[in-house]
Amino acid sequence: MTFLPDDPVVRVPIEVHFFDTDAGGVVHNTVYLRWIEIGRDTLARQLGWSLEEMLRGDHGCPVVTRTEIDYLKPVRLGQSVVVESRLTSLGRVRFVITSTVATPDGPVHCRAVQTLAAVDLKRMRPVRLRADWVARWPHLVQEPMS
Amino acid sequence: MTFLPDDPVVRVPIEVHFFDTDAGGVVHNTVYLRWIEIGRDTLARQLGWSLEEMLRGDHGCPVVTRTEIDYLKPVRLGQSVVVESRLTSLGRVRFVITSTVATPDGPVHCRAVQTLAAVDLKRMRPVRLRADWVARWPHLVQEPMS
Amino acid sequence: MTFLPDDPVVRVPIEVHFFDTDAGGVVHNTVYLRWIEIGRDTLARQLGWSLEEMLRGDHGCPVVTRTEIDYLKPVRLGQSVVVESRLTSLGRVRFVITSTVATPDGPVHCRAVQTLAAVDLKRMRPVRLRADWVARWPHLVQEPMS
Amino acid sequence: MTFLPDDPVVRVPIEVHFFDTDAGGVVHNTVYLRWIEIGRDTLARQLGWSLEEMLRGDHGCPVVTRTEIDYLKPVRLGQSVVVESRLTSLGRVRFVITSTVATPDGPVHCRAVQTLAAVDLKRMRPVRLRADWVARWPHLVQEPMS
Repeated sequence: MTFLPDDPVVRVPIEVHFFDTDAGGVVHNTVYLRWIEIGRDTLARQLGWSLEEMLRGDHGCPVVTRTEIDYLKPVRLGQSVVVESRLTSLGRVRFVITSTVATPDGPVHCRAVQTLAAVDLKRMRPVRLRADWVARWPHLVQEPMS
Repeated sequence: MTFLPDDPVVRVPIEVHFFDTDAGGVVHNTVYLRWIEIGRDTLARQLGWSLEEMLRGDHGCPVVTRTEIDYLKPVRLGQSVVVESRLTSLGRVRFVITSTVATPDGPVHCRAVQTLAAVDLKRMRPVRLRADWVARWPHLVQEPMS
Repeated sequence: MTFLPDDPVVRVPIEVHFFDTDAGGVVHNTVYLRWIEIGRDTLARQLGWSLEEMLRGDHGCPVVTRTEIDYLKPVRLGQSVVVESRLTSLGRVRFVITSTVATPDGPVHCRAVQTLAAVDLKRMRPVRLRADWVARWPHLVQEPMS
Repeated sequence: MTFLPDDPVVRVPIEVHFFDTDAGGVVHNTVYLRWIEIGRDTLARQLGWSLEEMLRGDHGCPVVTRTEIDYLKPVRLGQSVVVESRLTSLGRVRFVITSTVATPDGPVHCRAVQTLAAVDLKRMRPVRLRADWVARWPHLVQEPMS
């Protein structure tokens, strides 16, 4: 049986490499979305939804349908950061993951709210969000959310 | 003298390559931000602000401070799309560029609103937005916007 | 009928963006491989092998099996370069594309020789290279090449 | 004092994410170079050469001047791999790092030999390779190598 923690959150350490930075000397804005995807993938696996199952499984594949991201303070080469990703809302098809990128015990450099939908990749049709998540965190269910 | 069009907008054709797609068979969500940056860079150059000047010049370097992006319909390998980027708002330091990714004469696949700030990269301090832009499109100036 | 030029070569102009550069102020070494893939894709399409057909078609999908790449002179933000990609060798399964990245009328910044193999993606098995290429450029056929 | 191991090698575990794969269902060929850079950066730090020092320091910044990479067996979403990077040769300016990407206790999926040169990034001039490396592994010094 899969362990489902009561607070659906993960923290993942990330190192900055040259390929993450640009000629402005800071991490490029698209790279935070790669880091946040690492956070999301780790969270999903912790919550019993592996990447292999996403690609082939019964629950559809989670697809990002909206991102709101605020860049608060640039990250530089040589810094270590931590991505924190938390499941914050559940609907019939969609769910929300809220993530931050921060230095350990330091300020938040970036904050993102992402809406995802479970999608049947072959037909590109939305599918019902997996029932075990809804059952486990009923307080996260948002009624008007599709 | 730089030509400043009255409608500050560009349209850039984009081709989809294998490296833009993922194992789900569609373009990965981070790639749209790369394409939209191509649109923004093209728009900025058309409006007299080249990448070289961004990196070294008097007006600071535009840095993305917020992105809101909606993924409406996936793009697939072999499709051609057009990025349209338009300057839609001006402030003292910040400005807004609104972009879409669409198939030619077809539906919008992705829409993004991005706030940028002119920043002195060495001191990481905001600088006043270039005056020629403000003078040219006074109807885009938003008072409460910093 | 597909037009097959006698010299199987293309030249594709490329612009450099912030996301191509790193904190060292130059284009990152992985980016040249992205540009060279744009050259290869353009060449393949010119020679009658589109990306859609690669993904779904009868001739398998070309997969890179070896790259040799020399970085001769860094490219910087604001430079324009041209990728030139040429079909230089044909075998039973494999073929070779040789590419350069150069400034227009200027020095070569990067040179790469890539071996590709036609592969059935479902079974991950090599398939016979398309016969029309072999028939068209018999002088490129290398006997010992598999 | 920095600890310099007698066998200059590191092993770094890597996870595969959607953004590493392409529509062919496998990891894209450019991504292995990103993973190998993670291996190289980890090795360099272990050997006393951090990224911050690379960017600002006395020994120049290591720049890749040549890569030879063989793609032997594709990696797929959901697989875990290990990058192993080893310092294999030292010259006056250049050095060689040899890397593999393999599944744990499994086959090698990819193998690369990369030549790097220590470069003064401001003047884009080669500089003498750091003396502590040469002193520590004299058996790796290749006389004809510049």
